[in-house]
Amino acid sequence: MPTGIDGVEIRTGNLKLDLAETFAPEKDDDPAKYTKGLGLHASSFPDTYEDIVTMAANAAKRLMERKGLQPDDIGRIDVATESAFDHAKPVSTYVAGCLEQVFEGDFHHANKGERKFACIAGTQALDDAVNWIEAGKNRGRAALVIATDTALYERGDSGEATQGAGAVAMLVDEDPDLVTVDPDQGYGSADETDFLKPNQQFPSVDGKRSMQVYLARMREALTDFERSWGDTHPDQFALVPFHTPFPGMVRKAAVLGFRHLMRGTDIEDALESEIGRQPRRDDFADDEAFMDALSEYTDALGETDRYAEWYDDTIESTLAISRHVGNWYTGSVHLARAAGLREAAQAGVDLAGEHLLVASYGSGAQAEIHAETVQDGWEAEIEQLNVEDQLDDRYDISWSEYETIHEVHDYDETTDVDPFTTPSREFVFDGWGRMGERKYTYVE
Amino acid sequence: MPTGIDGVEIRTGNLKLDLAETFAPEKDDDPAKYTKGLGLHASSFPDTYEDIVTMAANAAKRLMERKGLQPDDIGRIDVATESAFDHAKPVSTYVAGCLEQVFEGDFHHANKGERKFACIAGTQALDDAVNWIEAGKNRGRAALVIATDTALYERGDSGEATQGAGAVAMLVDEDPDLVTVDPDQGYGSADETDFLKPNQQFPSVDGKRSMQVYLARMREALTDFERSWGDTHPDQFALVPFHTPFPGMVRKAAVLGFRHLMRGTDIEDALESEIGRQPRRDDFADDEAFMDALSEYTDALGETDRYAEWYDDTIESTLAISRHVGNWYTGSVHLARAAGLREAAQAGVDLAGEHLLVASYGSGAQAEIHAETVQDGWEAEIEQLNVEDQLDDRYDISWSEYETIHEVHDYDETTDVDPFTTPSREFVFDGWGRMGERKYTYVE
Repeated sequence: MPTGIDGVEIRTGNLKLDLAETFAPEKDDDPAKYTKGLGLHASSFPDTYEDIVTMAANAAKRLMERKGLQPDDIGRIDVATESAFDHAKPVSTYVAGCLEQVFEGDFHHANKGERKFACIAGTQALDDAVNWIEAGKNRGRAALVIATDTALYERGDSGEATQGAGAVAMLVDEDPDLVTVDPDQGYGSADETDFLKPNQQFPSVDGKRSMQVYLARMREALTDFERSWGDTHPDQFALVPFHTPFPGMVRKAAVLGFRHLMRGTDIEDALESEIGRQPRRDDFADDEAFMDALSEYTDALGETDRYAEWYDDTIESTLAISRHVGNWYTGSVHLARAAGLREAAQAGVDLAGEHLLVASYGSGAQAEIHAETVQDGWEAEIEQLNVEDQLDDRYDISWSEYETIHEVHDYDETTDVDPFTTPSREFVFDGWGRMGERKYTYVE
Repeated sequence: MPTGIDGVEIRTGNLKLDLAETFAPEKDDDPAKYTKGLGLHASSFPDTYEDIVTMAANAAKRLMERKGLQPDDIGRIDVATESAFDHAKPVSTYVAGCLEQVFEGDFHHANKGERKFACIAGTQALDDAVNWIEAGKNRGRAALVIATDTALYERGDSGEATQGAGAVAMLVDEDPDLVTVDPDQGYGSADETDFLKPNQQFPSVDGKRSMQVYLARMREALTDFERSWGDTHPDQFALVPFHTPFPGMVRKAAVLGFRHLMRGTDIEDALESEIGRQPRRDDFADDEAFMDALSEYTDALGETDRYAEWYDDTIESTLAISRHVGNWYTGSVHLARAAGLREAAQAGVDLAGEHLLVASYGSGAQAEIHAETVQDGWEAEIEQLNVEDQLDDRYDISWSEYETIHEVHDYDETTDVDPFTTPSREFVFDGWGRMGERKYTYVE
């Protein structure tokens, strides 16, 4: 029985920082630096009563309600995050504790866990859940896989404009409504120092290196993917959702992906008169000369109409949500998949039976490329998302409110700040318990 | 094809703190408080050049060499730990980086990851690796699963006597030499506040609560296990390795396990004249009265010869290593399995075809009970362990040396201390890189 994502829910933080209107003027920058350069219009932030647990639990609650599920139907809850606030107790136990406040029954026989590997852990948790079912361990139950993060940088860090906060919850089951997660997988992985959080909440980032490593690991993963899938062609995939730290990064990755997918195909033949053929390693004296030629070819390829057409069809729509929420770390690639499917549904495109090529990445560093197949129920499922309403409902914070909320979520600061919004029908952070644990309650 | 653990390696920290000789006198305690009460004789500690990465990499290196493996043979490296020093980059990437210094080739196409859930994450990572192979995703390759921790408490904390440090590396493959990990699994899991590390290196522990939660979750997991396995009988399992924070905890858990396994069996019948039958919930007016009666019965059961015999046969040998190294957190239950098998091999007991009942636990809290089956090659494999030599070779630290080494491994302290031992043919921590990352090298 094919296994994959039966349903998805997205939960943004309730605050919004407008990059053009609020961030750029304060930095004395041209707004286009953010809206065109990074491809970002706004970041989501958690209000004072929100965190990775509330966003995860709120997404999971809506997903379970929509799907008519009770705790007994769930055999596994895996959370992926790089924003954990405890070194031992996993976020999934807090999420289950929240859900047990509002559902009948409990999750006492569900296997709960937590995965960490920068931004790729959400995909790893998804793969584990799929394997758990395919290995026959689920006893008829589904898995909840939740990617949740608050992506904050030090004030003034070059990553400050790419911040974001939100959760993506996925229901993994047999005979899924949305997509199957197919067995073809490829990995590119190396011990890299591009983005670290050594005993610290906010990351140390070598931005230039991180972009190089993202591309290098993607290249390796694509090569590995072909060992399983066989020869690729760009037209085999209706959408290619990438991990999206900011849309500008995906623009760089997409052309590399296209070059790889079209190598040896009719597209390479058709473009030969315009930009020549792809450089092959054997034709060069050394790696450097080869890489230079490859880089030149890639730049030329990126300027072709054929590439622009492919980008518009398979990539552009996957960035539709990211542009307005920033980087959600582990959730980012799953946001990209949801955005692409949602845009297709709104445009009336029929994707049933089409393949997706999902390109995940985590600094440190690893890329995973895997194939998915869109299922018959995809349109009805994706139309359930209320992400547009959520984005519209966010409170648009001023610069000084941004400064305040950044401090609220800084573990090293103690603040006592009133929320900017009023929680309604959602889980909220409710103060600390006797052992320093975070406590949660559901407000009507 | 049956899947499970093909090989195992154990790596202790190179220092030893003797509880009777060194710890007890300093605390003005009777040594028996530790050796009899807790059941612990010594703790392992990392020397200044050791940490969770070096212990993991040293265990993995010996395992790969013994098994004649190269990096290309490994498709997955998963590390379980609750001692991570980075919130984004996983320990598995550092371990792979170490191994690439000494093996030909690289692990660039291996999926690396990290799991966190207090002490149970090692078993969760093992299960994930088994599922990955059973779901047919491994393309002929094996998985390395490594549980590595440095279990330190605040100086003066009640957990200080149960500290420990070490790694257990497991090779997971089809047709394994040691044990298959069988599909029968049971879970008991709840959102508990018994042991936390909220943004802190050293744990906050409610010791009494933690012991109650350990037993409550084990009880739930046993009930869940029976849904898959069917009726249990104590004689079905040759060994019952438990998570062992200290051997005294296992003494409490074992009688609960025995009571559960023997319910409704000939053993309950045979003991009826001596201690009555097990209380059943339906015979009591309320939960409290039932729990009181159950507690009384359990105490009486623990005093029977039949129980003592079972304990000696299936539990005692699993504590043989723990007694001398303390709590290794994620590695602890895997140390218990290895100890039990090793003792059986030394006693000339033939376990091939016999079942193990493996009882894992993590605070926060979750228990997992699963069955394993000992394979024909188990004896040759387990005899490869050099753990006895490693334990004998540890440097026995004085009290003041203990105070120093505790500070060395405290993230909040900066120290410059010479090692107590001289590293030889092992990976060592070698200082910090430009972004605050830990660096490693192999010394001949």
